[in-house]
Amino acid sequence: MPHTLSSTPCADGFFMPAEFAPHKQTWMLWPQRPDTWRLGAKPAQKAFATVAAAIARFEPVTVGVNHDQYANARALLPPQVRVVEISNNDAWMRDCGPTFVVNGRGQVRGVDWRFNAWGGLYNGLYFPWDLDEAVAQKVLEIEGLDRYKAPLVLEGGSIHVDGQGTCLTTAECLLSPGRNPDLTQEQIEAYLRDYLNVQKVLWLPRGVYADETSGHVDNLVCFLRPGELALTWTDDRTDPQYERSLEAYEYLRAQTDARGRRFTIHKIHQPGPLYLTAEETEGLDQVENSLPRRAGDRLAASYINFYFCNRAAIVPTFNDPHDAQALAVLQRLLPDRQVIGVPGREILLGGGNIHCITQQQPLG
Amino acid sequence: MPHTLSSTPCADGFFMPAEFAPHKQTWMLWPQRPDTWRLGAKPAQKAFATVAAAIARFEPVTVGVNHDQYANARALLPPQVRVVEISNNDAWMRDCGPTFVVNGRGQVRGVDWRFNAWGGLYNGLYFPWDLDEAVAQKVLEIEGLDRYKAPLVLEGGSIHVDGQGTCLTTAECLLSPGRNPDLTQEQIEAYLRDYLNVQKVLWLPRGVYADETSGHVDNLVCFLRPGELALTWTDDRTDPQYERSLEAYEYLRAQTDARGRRFTIHKIHQPGPLYLTAEETEGLDQVENSLPRRAGDRLAASYINFYFCNRAAIVPTFNDPHDAQALAVLQRLLPDRQVIGVPGREILLGGGNIHCITQQQPLG
Repeated sequence: MPHTLSSTPCADGFFMPAEFAPHKQTWMLWPQRPDTWRLGAKPAQKAFATVAAAIARFEPVTVGVNHDQYANARALLPPQVRVVEISNNDAWMRDCGPTFVVNGRGQVRGVDWRFNAWGGLYNGLYFPWDLDEAVAQKVLEIEGLDRYKAPLVLEGGSIHVDGQGTCLTTAECLLSPGRNPDLTQEQIEAYLRDYLNVQKVLWLPRGVYADETSGHVDNLVCFLRPGELALTWTDDRTDPQYERSLEAYEYLRAQTDARGRRFTIHKIHQPGPLYLTAEETEGLDQVENSLPRRAGDRLAASYINFYFCNRAAIVPTFNDPHDAQALAVLQRLLPDRQVIGVPGREILLGGGNIHCITQQQPLG
Repeated sequence: MPHTLSSTPCADGFFMPAEFAPHKQTWMLWPQRPDTWRLGAKPAQKAFATVAAAIARFEPVTVGVNHDQYANARALLPPQVRVVEISNNDAWMRDCGPTFVVNGRGQVRGVDWRFNAWGGLYNGLYFPWDLDEAVAQKVLEIEGLDRYKAPLVLEGGSIHVDGQGTCLTTAECLLSPGRNPDLTQEQIEAYLRDYLNVQKVLWLPRGVYADETSGHVDNLVCFLRPGELALTWTDDRTDPQYERSLEAYEYLRAQTDARGRRFTIHKIHQPGPLYLTAEETEGLDQVENSLPRRAGDRLAASYINFYFCNRAAIVPTFNDPHDAQALAVLQRLLPDRQVIGVPGREILLGGGNIHCITQQQPLG
């Protein structure tokens, strides 16, 4: 019996749990648009299906799809994955889907943020984005969950929480003129406190170099558990990512979380650097109003863009010499989980990775 | 974890329960197409919303909607009704939705019949019908229920069961050249036995006069309980419905059900006769490939086209002198239910009524 609520999660005693808390299921969308995904999205569809199949070993997965791709998605996804119609402009459930909140007494609700395709008319990545904007509501309707309509432009990939009162975000993204130019940093932080029910917001300066999301935090750093972080890293001081990772490291070293703890920070060396190839760009439709992609463009590749599901972590790999080390380090840091590598380049070509295309629905 | 099964309900011990058995929820679709529904479907949308609201007092209701009507449907339906995307060509969930079957031990599955818009290229009512054909699968996916794919063109409105082994249908519909012209009556009956798990199929000759479905049984006669039927009737011997109702009455009087019982048959006098007005036809889009509707056309109006939901029966009314008697007789015959009249003319203008736009999902 879904209702739209005019209160806030904080006022009602609901909060966003950490991604590593137990899930009821994972939500994804199905890639389709030929200006984002090369070769009619066929390689990306295979990559998304592999991610869905990997997660479905550990928890239920629901994939939302436009009606003209329903039969194809149903055929390419394993039968245990649920396929539902959710019309969309592109396939980034992390960013246009709901942020689920819980009250610790079995109830789950959803926050439906405003969505403007990562920058709206200022520097958004495509136009229009009306279908994406309705995705969160449709997910909550299917589940019969109450909805908070948040008056803030925000993508799920621009926040991380530890479930114990701490939120990580980046100033590069949340203060971008493409998001909420009429709000001050204090006003934005007040919304994060109200809708995530966090007590401390840590504003990292910038995200990953060449990240077209205006620097989403979920490509840069993530919680492994409260007080413990994984950060994308490079040892190459000439790489433009170096100063960004160092800046994040130094910022986080100087901070404490909502409970006053200092952070343990694990550096995960980035892949590559990786670049778009001419063959890859030639497979894309050329259209108006979408971000152009050119051969030689730097790709914002990062192992941090992985996803926690129940008893596992699904990590993008790039057929890169750094893959093995990233997987080994994460497996050592997450001894209670299976760390599973899944090829991520085709997802990266669309502008994100495994974390960007998934959204956890927590258990109540 | 939905799977498509290659066996049959009969082989697996599943059967279709009676509509008056307990429901988990009711499924509907949202009217939209302007060649079926006058004035851009606005009056029909109000009528459907009233039906949904009436049922939602007694059990959960889910309404499937095309994406471009999602926001409008969400706004017009009460909040306790769930709205989900299910693309469709028109709004007849009874006919394109799944037939749910149960095994009496808590499990529910669905039968997905072939659908061809009531006659395909022979005498179907519109073209194309590809979205309708996928509705049943999408309903079952949302619910995570296993699916039987039946190799038979059949609409849910062409069958009624008593849940005790008896099926009612009409030869006019099931033997129509527009349905399964390559199958004999015996082959069709074998499919009904296999997929509904019934032991006796009663073939009424014809349905209601001027019914564009080729005479669906659900507009003519229905079970009130096993062994007891309600039949649409007229006392006017000059009305073309007279001989059809008399023919059905005499046929049923001579039959027994699967358990050997003779039928008690209650006659419910029809409304009207009712006819399309010029004002009503002028509100329709004129298009190719759809059944034309002309001022003065006879409407196949019947109170029998009502719907059982938990603890109630939702009955169409027509602002007609016969309304009060129909409601009173049904209330007397259904003493354990609330009999609720809901205005049905706007639904009738589209070619059916409350039973045609609903589909029960039984409790397991």
